Amino acid sequence: MSLSLYEASIPAYVRMLKNLDAMLDKAVAHGNEAGVDLSTYTEARLAEDMHPLPRQIHLASDSAKGGAARLAGIDAPSMPDVETTIPELKERIAKTLAFLGTIKPEQVNGDEERTIELKLPSRTMTFTAKDFLFGFSMPNFLFHVTTAYGLLRNKGVPLGKMDYLAGAQA
Amino acid sequence: MSLSLYEASIPAYVRMLKNLDAMLDKAVAHGNEAGVDLSTYTEARLAEDMHPLPRQIHLASDSAKGGAARLAGIDAPSMPDVETTIPELKERIAKTLAFLGTIKPEQVNGDEERTIELKLPSRTMTFTAKDFLFGFSMPNFLFHVTTAYGLLRNKGVPLGKMDYLAGAQA
Repeated sequence: MSLSLYEASIPAYVRMLKNLDAMLDKAVAHGNEAGVDLSTYTEARLAEDMHPLPRQIHLASDSAKGGAARLAGIDAPSMPDVETTIPELKERIAKTLAFLGTIKPEQVNGDEERTIELKLPSRTMTFTAKDFLFGFSMPNFLFHVTTAYGLLRNKGVPLGKMDYLAGAQA
Repeated sequence: MSLSLYEASIPAYVRMLKNLDAMLDKAVAHGNEAGVDLSTYTEARLAEDMHPLPRQIHLASDSAKGGAARLAGIDAPSMPDVETTIPELKERIAKTLAFLGTIKPEQVNGDEERTIELKLPSRTMTFTAKDFLFGFSMPNFLFHVTTAYGLLRNKGVPLGKMDYLAGAQA
């Protein structure tokens, strides 16, 4: 059996978003137990000019839904970045997962060499579909999931690598 | 044209290791310019019980060479984790890149469903080759690259997302 663009993309976005959601649950549980106000987590940044936790999660959502939509050749649903609390951020993740659940393998597979354009404020990046996935979308998505993990760890939430990698084994 | 396991793996390990190497150069340049002792960077951790920068780079190297070797069905070269300074860590990255350069597409491609076993101290994880790559090896590798980036940013090294994503566009 060969490899498909769908199986290299959508299940990975889904799994890591679920892991991110579970990390937020652990943050709430730890905050409540340790008497830490949850704003300690939602206001955390790794550097003054890096984004705080909510924006990391908006960007994880954007890169997953935008990546999946571009791979499927459809428009991603708009999700205004209004979520600031952990319950709201979990809702954003749930909405992103619901969209990912609508993408069918046949929408993504079949033409791994087709062109995908990514319009940025400063320039347009042009990729083949597979280079977009492996070179841009997945590393960018995992950057935001890992940074969210790092922020929570930095603020004392007891997480381990397997919270990040959960579900790796089928 | 279809998708191959080689193109989903080896070029991504290579590119991100080169980006990591370039981040270390920027850390040295910034440290020298700002009068920051480089041990500030090499001793940095995001949490007391997280690994410092050298270990993040050892683990990025291990996950790249171990991942590539498992995908190719060969043994990875042993690289004792002795590097602690930035020049030594750059040498570790160079050795890892040299090994990755020896892997040929035909060693990796052809049987995406074959079994890969990952022996951990506590248990053995069993994957198909493609699940190993997408579910474990690549997310684990990118975790360590992103955490190295976060550590350096946390200590004031001026990096941006495009230092992490450099070379995404062919």
